Amino acid sequence: MNNYSKIGIAEEARIELHDRLALTGAEISINTLPAGTSVPFVHSHRQNEEIYAILEGAGVAAIDGKSIDLKAGDRLRISPSAKRRFFASDTTDIKYICIQVKENSLKNYTTADAIA
Amino acid sequence: MNNYSKIGIAEEARIELHDRLALTGAEISINTLPAGTSVPFVHSHRQNEEIYAILEGAGVAAIDGKSIDLKAGDRLRISPSAKRRFFASDTTDIKYICIQVKENSLKNYTTADAIA
Repeated sequence: MNNYSKIGIAEEARIELHDRLALTGAEISINTLPAGTSVPFVHSHRQNEEIYAILEGAGVAAIDGKSIDLKAGDRLRISPSAKRRFFASDTTDIKYICIQVKENSLKNYTTADAIA
Repeated sequence: MNNYSKIGIAEEARIELHDRLALTGAEISINTLPAGTSVPFVHSHRQNEEIYAILEGAGVAAIDGKSIDLKAGDRLRISPSAKRRFFASDTTDIKYICIQVKENSLKNYTTADAIA
């Protein structure tokens, strides 16, 4: 495996980076939900924590039956067991990054993991 | 721990999400390097794979002595052992997300990790 891999991202409804960048510690997807639509299922996860970064637009995350408003700039962590579903706003698309990582997998980070 | 946590992101030079969102599988930072500046050190990592998503602007990643041009929309994976340093363009700031995860920590993902 090379020590790095790089791609540019065009506009698509959902882009998945795991295979395209040969990721080993995360799956990362960039998603666009058109206004008035939703991910058509409620689900939870077995092992993975999810982190959402809202890039553009607005919408709602339904988490364990509670509605959380989302807008550009918001960052959201969701535990594996939480039952979730995502909705775009009725009037605007929502574009977001979703990062899936194994819960409790990170040991050290930043300076504690760095070698100068 | 709650099953979710959410924050909004204002404009700061570097924002770190691990503690603010109680992340357990990743550290995620949103960084802005002003035009003409760089991260002032070369470093590698012990355990962590890094993924960079360029949000705005342009710059260069020097990886193991090779210069990789970066612009908005690019996504870059870097292995732990790679020696890296980041530069903004001379003429524009670069704004990017950096995701740190433990190499080889992800087991299943998306539908293989989901519970309907």
